[in-house]
Amino acid sequence: MTDRSSTPNDRGSPVVLKLGGSLITAKDRPETVDEEALAAAGEAIAAADVGGAPDRGDAKTNRAAGLVLVHGGGSFGHHHASEHGLSTTDGSRDVAAVTDVHGAMGVLSDAVLAALRERGVPAVPVHPLSLAARESGANGSLTLPLASVRTLLAEGFVPVVHGDLVATAGAGVTVVSGDELVVELAVGLGADRVGVCSTVPGVLDVDGDVIPTIDAFGPVAEAVGASDATDVSGGMAAKVRELLALDAPASVFGPADLGAFLRGASPGTTIE
Amino acid sequence: MTDRSSTPNDRGSPVVLKLGGSLITAKDRPETVDEEALAAAGEAIAAADVGGAPDRGDAKTNRAAGLVLVHGGGSFGHHHASEHGLSTTDGSRDVAAVTDVHGAMGVLSDAVLAALRERGVPAVPVHPLSLAARESGANGSLTLPLASVRTLLAEGFVPVVHGDLVATAGAGVTVVSGDELVVELAVGLGADRVGVCSTVPGVLDVDGDVIPTIDAFGPVAEAVGASDATDVSGGMAAKVRELLALDAPASVFGPADLGAFLRGASPGTTIE
Repeated sequence: MTDRSSTPNDRGSPVVLKLGGSLITAKDRPETVDEEALAAAGEAIAAADVGGAPDRGDAKTNRAAGLVLVHGGGSFGHHHASEHGLSTTDGSRDVAAVTDVHGAMGVLSDAVLAALRERGVPAVPVHPLSLAARESGANGSLTLPLASVRTLLAEGFVPVVHGDLVATAGAGVTVVSGDELVVELAVGLGADRVGVCSTVPGVLDVDGDVIPTIDAFGPVAEAVGASDATDVSGGMAAKVRELLALDAPASVFGPADLGAFLRGASPGTTIE
Repeated sequence: MTDRSSTPNDRGSPVVLKLGGSLITAKDRPETVDEEALAAAGEAIAAADVGGAPDRGDAKTNRAAGLVLVHGGGSFGHHHASEHGLSTTDGSRDVAAVTDVHGAMGVLSDAVLAALRERGVPAVPVHPLSLAARESGANGSLTLPLASVRTLLAEGFVPVVHGDLVATAGAGVTVVSGDELVVELAVGLGADRVGVCSTVPGVLDVDGDVIPTIDAFGPVAEAVGASDATDVSGGMAAKVRELLALDAPASVFGPADLGAFLRGASPGTTIE
């Protein structure tokens, strides 16, 4: 049994954890889950005991705060999105785009849910296409109502959200990336901590070493590369900028550090 | 090509149409689609030309108002819900309930989406579990944010919503019925007209004949049976009470009249 005093739920706000698409899928083979990586992530999450029935009898631990999981598209979402000319700003009204992209992301979501439930994590799907909408224009803001996620969390479930398509005024459907959802969820839920678990052990400097702490973009600009404001689908520069803007501290780390993060540590790079 | 002047979109508000679970599934065989009935419904909806890219060039017809489809659970949802002791008021925190009920409803939703898309209807899934939440208590009100449905409609898609589970404060997940969703959507979207298509040709009187018009519950109480306030999962008495409470006129009719309803007629029983 995990020591409650070190679980991420103690402070009454949820933890938002992203599992990168490149981590849980074989990115060079279309629609292929990396079963080994997904199983390892499932084990780490199950061991952290973040879900389960809310412990209403113990207000001190406030376990209901819980965990929200977000995953990217990896080899499931990206090539279909490209085929249909979709991005976070370029949309389509062709229902085949929905069938292909949302359909493939549903298959990946089902694989993630199965890997979690097999290990006792009470994972429940939350599909952004059902939930969200984007306003028109290049920087159209995202509406992501949180009643469902908040109530699922309070009832002890682990909501699993994924990169998806989203209805967009004037453009049909556009892409909503996992990174964008992490930021929306962290802000909207008042997250305690944010974790981004990908294939690299942190944000790397120009020598390839992990940068321990980032508190401003300037000093790391050279290392993380040019930041394109529209790049919200995987670029490290955009990730760093968005995580810097959050109130909650964020950790960027690799799969070996997932358990440590869930036990309350700040592995890899801390962005605050 | 359908005459635009007789489509249900002319008045700028959407039509909400429910396909009963008993209509599109073989209710006596677990998880079996009634392929023939579903195909016929798909043909009628495709012929009505209710979806497609919004006709922004013709403000008079305002075609973007469109159609929202709701379907019930039939032989997919009900037996799983019973097995887990779930109703609109009795909940569960067992994730297996979500796997079974939401999983089965996902299979039925996929069958409905496929039947529509095969016939050119731009149908897009909206899963209530992703979207909605219910407050605690026996009459806990439902929160159903409509940003996604509104934007999908405006962009020319046909949102397909289904009876499902919903996160419920203090109870885990409870059932949200197709009938309940029809009422929420009709009120929230300011629906123009509401249609309920089931296996019977309308609300029947004590002699088994269709009652043409209902404008109060009292005169039909004997014919539709006792109304139990908690019965929102299929009983005709509860349906009639809820449809009477709507601003929009509602039609209750059988499958033979689906095309007529979508062309603007008021077949079967009109409730207003």
